[in-house]
Amino acid sequence: MKTLLIPFVALASLGAAPAPKPALAPSEIVAAAPASDWIAIAPADMLVMTLANGKQAVIQLMPPPFSQGWIGNIRKLAAAHWWDGLSINRVQDNYVVQWGDANEKKALPAGLVSVGEGEYSSAKSDVLKLSSLPIESNKGQQPLHSVDEIIKEVTADWAKAYKKSGLAAYGDSDAYSDVTGILKGWPVALDDENIWPVHCYSMVGVGRNLSPDTGSGAELYTVIGHAPRHLDRNIAVVGRVISGIENLSSLPRGTGALGFYEKAEERVGIISIRLASELPTADQPRFEYLSTDSKSFATYADARANRRDAFFNVPAGGADICNIPVPVRKKP
Amino acid sequence: MKTLLIPFVALASLGAAPAPKPALAPSEIVAAAPASDWIAIAPADMLVMTLANGKQAVIQLMPPPFSQGWIGNIRKLAAAHWWDGLSINRVQDNYVVQWGDANEKKALPAGLVSVGEGEYSSAKSDVLKLSSLPIESNKGQQPLHSVDEIIKEVTADWAKAYKKSGLAAYGDSDAYSDVTGILKGWPVALDDENIWPVHCYSMVGVGRNLSPDTGSGAELYTVIGHAPRHLDRNIAVVGRVISGIENLSSLPRGTGALGFYEKAEERVGIISIRLASELPTADQPRFEYLSTDSKSFATYADARANRRDAFFNVPAGGADICNIPVPVRKKP
Repeated sequence: MKTLLIPFVALASLGAAPAPKPALAPSEIVAAAPASDWIAIAPADMLVMTLANGKQAVIQLMPPPFSQGWIGNIRKLAAAHWWDGLSINRVQDNYVVQWGDANEKKALPAGLVSVGEGEYSSAKSDVLKLSSLPIESNKGQQPLHSVDEIIKEVTADWAKAYKKSGLAAYGDSDAYSDVTGILKGWPVALDDENIWPVHCYSMVGVGRNLSPDTGSGAELYTVIGHAPRHLDRNIAVVGRVISGIENLSSLPRGTGALGFYEKAEERVGIISIRLASELPTADQPRFEYLSTDSKSFATYADARANRRDAFFNVPAGGADICNIPVPVRKKP
Repeated sequence: MKTLLIPFVALASLGAAPAPKPALAPSEIVAAAPASDWIAIAPADMLVMTLANGKQAVIQLMPPPFSQGWIGNIRKLAAAHWWDGLSINRVQDNYVVQWGDANEKKALPAGLVSVGEGEYSSAKSDVLKLSSLPIESNKGQQPLHSVDEIIKEVTADWAKAYKKSGLAAYGDSDAYSDVTGILKGWPVALDDENIWPVHCYSMVGVGRNLSPDTGSGAELYTVIGHAPRHLDRNIAVVGRVISGIENLSSLPRGTGALGFYEKAEERVGIISIRLASELPTADQPRFEYLSTDSKSFATYADARANRRDAFFNVPAGGADICNIPVPVRKKP
C-alpha cells in the first residue's frame, strides 16, 4: 500500500551509476544522535496520569522561569492525589482534551497560590535568571545581562539550523509574535518586553474562568489539533505531554458545547496523577529529550524545514515553530 | 467546571455603570451571518464515506483549477464503488488518517489518468481561468489577466479582514510561501509562478509512492494534527472533510511504522464512498460554506486574528492561514 511518507527507501539500481544516497529524514537524524546529545528528564519534572481504561500519559513540566506559580500548585495537587477519581470531561476536535473536577466541588489542597495574569509571560528580569538555572546548556555560562543577549540565546539553536540551510529567516516574526525560537528545549515566542511559551500540539495549559481568574492548575488541558496560538499569553502553559498523547487525542469527542461530555458516564475516569518522583524507582518513567543546543538538533530542525529525503520534491524552505517538535524518547 | 474558552458570558453588573458588551466571538459572528452569505455545496462535489462502525464523514472536493486530474480519478473511483469493502489502514497521531486498499491488489477502474508532478501547483495560466468558473464570486467578473490580479484576488478577503484590524500584514510570507490567503473558499499559498492548496487540519490528499509517482487518487488521507505544510507541493491536495472529521481523528492510532495498523483486524472497514449526487435526493447531505468574499467572513477572519471576546486579554494580532478555517454548516 502507498505509504504517503516513506522515511527511507534504498533506490533500486537502474543499471547505470548508482543513485546518490538520499538525505536523511528528520527521524533518522534523531535516531543517529549520540547518547551525549540526549538530556534525561528529572522524575520530579514529570507527571504520570493513569486512566480508568488502563492507558497512561506522561507530562513534562516547564522549567523556570515559566509559569512557576501554577506549576508549584500542580506539584501540590499531585502530591495531595487531588486528581485521583476525577475525570477527563472535555474532548473538542482539533482543539483540546481537558480534565479536572467536572462538578467543581472538590476542595483544593491547602497552600495553593493565586497567580497573576502577568505570569502568562516572563518579564525580562525573570528571563535574565535563566543562565543560573541548573540545566545543561548553562554550564559555565555567565549570567545574561541584556534583552539582546536573551534574544541571542533564544534564537541560537534556530540560527544554527538555518545557517546550515542558507536561510536568514531565523528569528523572523510569525503571525503571532516578533520572534519565535526554542529555549532550553521549549518552543517560545518573545517581543521587546517579554518571553512566553507557545501553544503547540501536546502542550499542557491551565483552564480558567474569565479574567482576572488565571486558574489554579487543578483544571488542565492539552492541545490535540492545529496550534491554537491565539491562546498564547491568554492562558498559562505549564508543560507538554511527552508520552501517551494518543491515549488522549483518540478519545471520543464530546457532543456538548465546546466538546464537553454531555453525560457523566461518557467521562473518562482518572485513576491517579502522580509526580514520577513519588513513584517507586522501578516504576518511574525514564525519558530524555534531544538537547536543543546540540548539533543533532540543529541538523534535525534544518531537515524539518527542508525535507531532502527521498519522498520529497520541494523542500519548504522553512517551518513554523510548532512544526519542529523537540524529540523525546524513552531512555534506552 | 472551568471552560477554558467561553464563547459568550454576560458580565455580572458590579453595581456601577454596566460593563461594556464584549465583542463577538468568531462562532457568534458566523452564527449571525445572513443566509445570503452562505453558499450551497453541490452534491456532485461531495463524497459520503460510510464506515463499518456506522459513522460517516463528508468530503468536499476542490474546484478547478486545483488538482483536477486526481479529482477526476476520484469521481471515477467513487462511481465504480471502488472503495466499498476496503479500509482505513493508517492512523498516525498528529499527522494523518489514510484509507484505501491495504493489499494494493484490487484492480483500478478503467479510465484513470496519470497526473504529473507539475499539477501539485497550478500555473499562472491555469489560475487565469478562475474568473470563468461557475462560482459565486465570479459573477459578472472579467477574466483575470495578470499575476498581480491573481494575487489581488487571493488576498482580497484577507485584506478586508486585516484592514478592519488596522494590520498591514495580509499577504505577508509565512515560513512556507511568499503569500497565503483564501481563494473562493479554499486556503492557498502562492509565489511568483504558481498557486497551490495547503495542508491544513482536515484537508484531504492523495497518497503516493516515490517520485515520479503522484498517486492515482485511490489512496487518500486526511490531516488530523498540526498543519503539515512541508507536504505542500509534494502531494496533491484534493479536498477537505467538512463533516465527521471526529469519526476519523478519534480512531485508535496504529502501532506500526508511520501509524499503520499492524493487524488486519485493527483496520476500520469502509462500507462505501459515494458521490453525494449518486445518492437518492433525500439521502444527499446538504452543506454550505460561508462565502469568503462576504463581509461576514472578513469580520470572522479578523476576530480569529484578534480575539476581543470576553475570555481574551491579549489579541494575537494575526493568525496563520490554517487557524482561520472556512466555516461550513449543515444547510438549515
